[in-house]
Amino acid sequence: MLRDPVHNYIYIQHRVILDLINTKEFQRLRRIKQLGTASLVFHGAEHTRFTHSLGVYEITRQICDNFKRNYPSQTAGDGLWDDRERLVALCAALLHDIGHGPYSHTFEHIFQTDHEAITAAILTNPTTEVNQVLRAVGPNFPEQVASVIQKTYPNPQVVQMISSQIDADRMDYLLRDAYHTGTKYGTFDLTRILRVMRPYHDGIAFNFNGMHAVEDYIVSRFQMYQQIYFHPVSRSMEVILGHLLTRAKEIYSDPEAAHGAAAPYLLFPFFQHQFDLEDYLLLDDGTLTTYFAHWRQSSDPILSDLSHRFLDRKPLKSAVFTDQTKAKLPLLRSLIEKAGFNTQYYTDTNNSYDLPYDAYDPKMKKPLTQIELMERDGNLVELSTVSSLVNAITGKFTGDQRFFFPREMIHPEPGNVDLFDPIYNQFQQHLHNDNII
Amino acid sequence: MLRDPVHNYIYIQHRVILDLINTKEFQRLRRIKQLGTASLVFHGAEHTRFTHSLGVYEITRQICDNFKRNYPSQTAGDGLWDDRERLVALCAALLHDIGHGPYSHTFEHIFQTDHEAITAAILTNPTTEVNQVLRAVGPNFPEQVASVIQKTYPNPQVVQMISSQIDADRMDYLLRDAYHTGTKYGTFDLTRILRVMRPYHDGIAFNFNGMHAVEDYIVSRFQMYQQIYFHPVSRSMEVILGHLLTRAKEIYSDPEAAHGAAAPYLLFPFFQHQFDLEDYLLLDDGTLTTYFAHWRQSSDPILSDLSHRFLDRKPLKSAVFTDQTKAKLPLLRSLIEKAGFNTQYYTDTNNSYDLPYDAYDPKMKKPLTQIELMERDGNLVELSTVSSLVNAITGKFTGDQRFFFPREMIHPEPGNVDLFDPIYNQFQQHLHNDNII
Amino acid sequence: MLRDPVHNYIYIQHRVILDLINTKEFQRLRRIKQLGTASLVFHGAEHTRFTHSLGVYEITRQICDNFKRNYPSQTAGDGLWDDRERLVALCAALLHDIGHGPYSHTFEHIFQTDHEAITAAILTNPTTEVNQVLRAVGPNFPEQVASVIQKTYPNPQVVQMISSQIDADRMDYLLRDAYHTGTKYGTFDLTRILRVMRPYHDGIAFNFNGMHAVEDYIVSRFQMYQQIYFHPVSRSMEVILGHLLTRAKEIYSDPEAAHGAAAPYLLFPFFQHQFDLEDYLLLDDGTLTTYFAHWRQSSDPILSDLSHRFLDRKPLKSAVFTDQTKAKLPLLRSLIEKAGFNTQYYTDTNNSYDLPYDAYDPKMKKPLTQIELMERDGNLVELSTVSSLVNAITGKFTGDQRFFFPREMIHPEPGNVDLFDPIYNQFQQHLHNDNII
Amino acid sequence: MLRDPVHNYIYIQHRVILDLINTKEFQRLRRIKQLGTASLVFHGAEHTRFTHSLGVYEITRQICDNFKRNYPSQTAGDGLWDDRERLVALCAALLHDIGHGPYSHTFEHIFQTDHEAITAAILTNPTTEVNQVLRAVGPNFPEQVASVIQKTYPNPQVVQMISSQIDADRMDYLLRDAYHTGTKYGTFDLTRILRVMRPYHDGIAFNFNGMHAVEDYIVSRFQMYQQIYFHPVSRSMEVILGHLLTRAKEIYSDPEAAHGAAAPYLLFPFFQHQFDLEDYLLLDDGTLTTYFAHWRQSSDPILSDLSHRFLDRKPLKSAVFTDQTKAKLPLLRSLIEKAGFNTQYYTDTNNSYDLPYDAYDPKMKKPLTQIELMERDGNLVELSTVSSLVNAITGKFTGDQRFFFPREMIHPEPGNVDLFDPIYNQFQQHLHNDNII
Repeated sequence: MLRDPVHNYIYIQHRVILDLINTKEFQRLRRIKQLGTASLVFHGAEHTRFTHSLGVYEITRQICDNFKRNYPSQTAGDGLWDDRERLVALCAALLHDIGHGPYSHTFEHIFQTDHEAITAAILTNPTTEVNQVLRAVGPNFPEQVASVIQKTYPNPQVVQMISSQIDADRMDYLLRDAYHTGTKYGTFDLTRILRVMRPYHDGIAFNFNGMHAVEDYIVSRFQMYQQIYFHPVSRSMEVILGHLLTRAKEIYSDPEAAHGAAAPYLLFPFFQHQFDLEDYLLLDDGTLTTYFAHWRQSSDPILSDLSHRFLDRKPLKSAVFTDQTKAKLPLLRSLIEKAGFNTQYYTDTNNSYDLPYDAYDPKMKKPLTQIELMERDGNLVELSTVSSLVNAITGKFTGDQRFFFPREMIHPEPGNVDLFDPIYNQFQQHLHNDNII
Repeated sequence: MLRDPVHNYIYIQHRVILDLINTKEFQRLRRIKQLGTASLVFHGAEHTRFTHSLGVYEITRQICDNFKRNYPSQTAGDGLWDDRERLVALCAALLHDIGHGPYSHTFEHIFQTDHEAITAAILTNPTTEVNQVLRAVGPNFPEQVASVIQKTYPNPQVVQMISSQIDADRMDYLLRDAYHTGTKYGTFDLTRILRVMRPYHDGIAFNFNGMHAVEDYIVSRFQMYQQIYFHPVSRSMEVILGHLLTRAKEIYSDPEAAHGAAAPYLLFPFFQHQFDLEDYLLLDDGTLTTYFAHWRQSSDPILSDLSHRFLDRKPLKSAVFTDQTKAKLPLLRSLIEKAGFNTQYYTDTNNSYDLPYDAYDPKMKKPLTQIELMERDGNLVELSTVSSLVNAITGKFTGDQRFFFPREMIHPEPGNVDLFDPIYNQFQQHLHNDNII
Repeated sequence: MLRDPVHNYIYIQHRVILDLINTKEFQRLRRIKQLGTASLVFHGAEHTRFTHSLGVYEITRQICDNFKRNYPSQTAGDGLWDDRERLVALCAALLHDIGHGPYSHTFEHIFQTDHEAITAAILTNPTTEVNQVLRAVGPNFPEQVASVIQKTYPNPQVVQMISSQIDADRMDYLLRDAYHTGTKYGTFDLTRILRVMRPYHDGIAFNFNGMHAVEDYIVSRFQMYQQIYFHPVSRSMEVILGHLLTRAKEIYSDPEAAHGAAAPYLLFPFFQHQFDLEDYLLLDDGTLTTYFAHWRQSSDPILSDLSHRFLDRKPLKSAVFTDQTKAKLPLLRSLIEKAGFNTQYYTDTNNSYDLPYDAYDPKMKKPLTQIELMERDGNLVELSTVSSLVNAITGKFTGDQRFFFPREMIHPEPGNVDLFDPIYNQFQQHLHNDNII
Repeated sequence: MLRDPVHNYIYIQHRVILDLINTKEFQRLRRIKQLGTASLVFHGAEHTRFTHSLGVYEITRQICDNFKRNYPSQTAGDGLWDDRERLVALCAALLHDIGHGPYSHTFEHIFQTDHEAITAAILTNPTTEVNQVLRAVGPNFPEQVASVIQKTYPNPQVVQMISSQIDADRMDYLLRDAYHTGTKYGTFDLTRILRVMRPYHDGIAFNFNGMHAVEDYIVSRFQMYQQIYFHPVSRSMEVILGHLLTRAKEIYSDPEAAHGAAAPYLLFPFFQHQFDLEDYLLLDDGTLTTYFAHWRQSSDPILSDLSHRFLDRKPLKSAVFTDQTKAKLPLLRSLIEKAGFNTQYYTDTNNSYDLPYDAYDPKMKKPLTQIELMERDGNLVELSTVSSLVNAITGKFTGDQRFFFPREMIHPEPGNVDLFDPIYNQFQQHLHNDNII
């Protein structure tokens, strides 16, 4: 029974779960922030993947309890809940994020790592403590748990608990991120949703009378993406981080070169793309920031400056561009170049689609992700066909595309540059109300 | 206007405050946890000193607003609030913790650093960004702000806002730690307390009709200390951390010895007690845990094992002892030694007084720390003389003394040791219900 | 300073406001429930119009404070806030509902009263305590306050504080009704909305960067209407109440007839439609339920039965019908008649439009009700043109039409009737999943 | 599944419970406020005994669930929980307050009614709907449920769920009253307390490791009594109510006298102390206030004035007196008499002990009310012997004694009286800081 600010308490009822929490692979998650660079925008959101993973476990436990009480399977294949599935569901819930590394999305992008493959490896590789705990349950148990996370487990109810449009993962992170950022948008009625969830042959459906609670969850998720996860400053800090790691990779690519005392030894395997699981598990947020602290004093001015910008939170500025105004980017880049910045490291574009947003869209190719409401007579209807609110959001979100550039282009710093150089004025003429015009 | 989970929003109304937040010294606080090892017990409590410092600022801002609205000074020396003091109060509030390093209490103890002296240095040393921002306000301003934190500033109202029995610092950390741990004990009615606070000649008093709100704050503080700050597992992890740093200091004391690639270069100045401000400011929680990750592979078995115990959260066990049962400790230590543990590194004692607990005690020598209630006719009465609840707590808390020892003494691990060695049985006979008997 | 569960505290800063609260007309609001029959569905929602009125006052006070701090008028006609308008705004906010009687909507419908006209009368009629307090401010002050409520006051900023798409009235009742019902749908970020509100020439606009908070408010309102205010059981209890009062009016229409000891003397003026203000102010929820308790024993079986159904909460059942299935109603009514019920008193239809729903629709004829966002350059854009969420809701809500009938038609009570009478079976064949088919 | 603001949802799992809620006796509780006159001080606290009764039911249900899961009885007499007791516990929880009438404490005092006896009567008298529902469970079931409420039921676990120092009744009202008043004092960790509650042979104990949660509950209760339940203005309104009913009883004592149209027919049985259960069940808060509205126009000036003071909330003022200053009361009364007030109706004294406060005192004669903590080895220790906080409160609270008098004595109203009459000045000389001196 662990105290938790979101779920009040987290109830541990199996020895296996306790042992998994106590593995070094799971404890490592304490050192990896859940929200990455978004914590640099929402200062309360310093919680980690450790905390979130416990929450996903707890929601899954509650789902199992509800299913067991209200929908216990009587005969195999009746589409109801077989409580012997509980342990595999709970383990998958707890471990679903265990392969994440520091600042996952950016790190993966630069070093071609794959947190899903690593998750599977941590579960199934006999060298890990996690594997040892799982193996004690049964020889195939590690693979079973991994297959739930990989969505290949035969029982769709178990798979959908952990990954579907309304799963324990999303429900926990929305509530938790809302709690720690202090926003109110992410809240929805978890109790009610759990109450109207029900197993059926093809997975999990929701009783029709719970439609409003489901609707509210979808709207909350939409708002959290728009306001927290896609925040321009958070995306800007990710741009800096990516460029910083790219620069480091370039500089340290020659392992033979003497790199001196403060070399980033733990990153070398990644610079050379020759890492194993053990190398990966040594990394956490603190490892990266410790190297960045070293690099502040690097003789490479770009590495040093980008380290400073990341550690001291000096975001790039950004402006929205459209397919129409995109043509202006080369001109803007040339002005930035003239102002003395290497545009490879000091500009970038991204759109909010780069992030793993999964707006609810029943027209997508994976039909399992639909949210099905079950009417009193057992008939299923897809949510967006009965909810005007959800229908309004479905498949329509377009996000924004942004061009990132140094703040100095609009606030040139006296002393360093000629404030009256016409390039600044020229640059600013192309911006209006945070848009490129 | 920053969103904050505890105060809803934090309002920044001066350019100086914004500039201070943007200094590298202040941003560093994002990488230092507020609760240190307690976050290993209360998993939600991963918030940092950065977040807390903003909260102290915000409460101070609200106090100033209330004082300005309701008790504006008309003539010098009338004991009311002179709003020209606002900026020095706000800066002191924001910066009061800026000298803290990683796991401050333990770190200070091992390396004889002093976070208060370092705070003063960060404010007044011309090399820091903080000093530059403050100096721009006025040549003496850095020293003024430092003197508020050092309690030597002439206006006691300003000093007491930041440090007294009911100050912005304590009020923020109680509310914030309660919020992030998910406990309910730390909550009290901040709005009401701010409303009944009032300036007078000797500092800050409280209107008599707010007694219950003040009483509730005192009780909340008492409960938070008993349940969060003095938690035995948190203290146990501090013991491990202290021994780990001591061991490292011992091993790395000879700087000439070749320490190989992964040596803790950033800690060398501290091992040799020859550090300057810049050395200090390079450290954060991540630096320490990164070195611990290196040390896991150390050839020194104690350094390696303690690193593992800290990173993977393997607390020592503990038992309460009294002045009577204290005599048993040598015997217990000798059994632990026999079981193969170096007792210098694997046992310890501490009592909850080691922590900076400041139970409200009007009989202490610093009379300023009394809480004074002001009756309608201006008369002052000390809180514990009118509140039976506070009176009950005042000066009576005794805490507990604990002996820490390896978990293996009560749960010997099969494979490593002879489970039937009589020393384990012998050891356990001296324990009952977490007490040494 | 009154403690309030929604706003924490309500600050009274003018003697006039305190005096208005202490009038008998305002105290009467303590005896009139805010939500009428909805409190019979959401049992926590037993709060009154008194409490809500204080909340509207408090929000208005906060708006005035924000406007005064951030947008103080410098010269007449500059479109900013003139704080001399504060008192008239506060009084209008506090008194905007003072003309409400018990179960207003139903009562008005049956007795042709008009709470808006009565509000104006209470403010301007020299016999009331409210008028006396207002008149003490200035001879025209009562009329000024009344004109704010009637939307004829010249300053549109003051009018829109109290009545517009996002006014103090709606913001308080959404938050308060959500709090007391225990739903989470009604919550939105009041602090943020107040912060982005700003005066301009034509009234009140919102800074563009607050769009998401405004959007969330609109969605919350939509959800509260769908789930709380339009709840079918609440509407069913209103149907019973209306029929009960109609029956009483019929029975007691002859004042000469001897009605015995327990006659509803306080209602006679309304039965005869010859009431004055004093008659009206004697009524409250308790008056009605006291008469209903008397009428339980009435010799008129319909009056007695409907009194019982209302007091003991025996709602009629209901089913949705459409323009297509509407043709079935005569048949259903005839079956109900056959089962022994007077269909005039035991059936009804209504749709959720009967309730004062004000879905945000910028295409409506009253252009003032648009929500305008102000961009950084002062340009105004209407909310639904930039928010896909709001656009989705705008003017599209259609509600439902329901037919109400006695529960006995689907659950005939043994003993009273012939359970095997084919009319029950026949009736039920036309219903499926709460719809008429 | 009913939505509840305090417990989120209330789960109805037995048909009997639903049927009990639907009885007219239980629905009547919707019209009786939980806090009586305290709602005139804390305006949000307008909730009723209906709502509270549902909450007590829900907490009891959760206790039963916990007991069943964690402490199921294996053999008769093993001191664990026999789940066949569930239904009697739930019914007793739901119905424990069903005998309450309007403003119970005052009403009982004036009319010598006894809500406990009436509760028993409602349960066991065959004329009530409640009795009919209970009897359907078993012929002795009504008596069994009644005996739980009367504490004579043989199983002490069931009795203590409903009435003991930490029972479902107190836990619900503290949380609920705190929620609706908006105070924070009444909150405590219900989940944790339920988790550490456990059955044993002599009733219910608490696991030792839950001590802090129990302690916090005791402190919260203490604070709620001091700040909400003993509030002087609430007690003052009770004084007015008592005098008003006394006066009415006097005036209407002669039933033969013609009392005109607006006579309080429903109260006659009580004026003559010849009432039966049916008479009692016709009364609610609204009945009384409706008569008070009638009496406003009474020709008896005291009845009329007290009705006005109660309905329009014009509390008497009060001052604290001690055993020393008690001697001043005759003098003060004579001055009040001189000022034209009938002191029998316009003055009173009471102390906070008049209210049913049950400060936790293990020295009281009823040993069952002790709170026992169970150590790991099964040993029981009484709470105040191990908690310094609880020890501080135990049996030490003394409350205050107050003298109530007309506000006009300190704020004489111009026009009515001679403001310069020396009696006012004389009267005020005996008061200082709300104390009689």
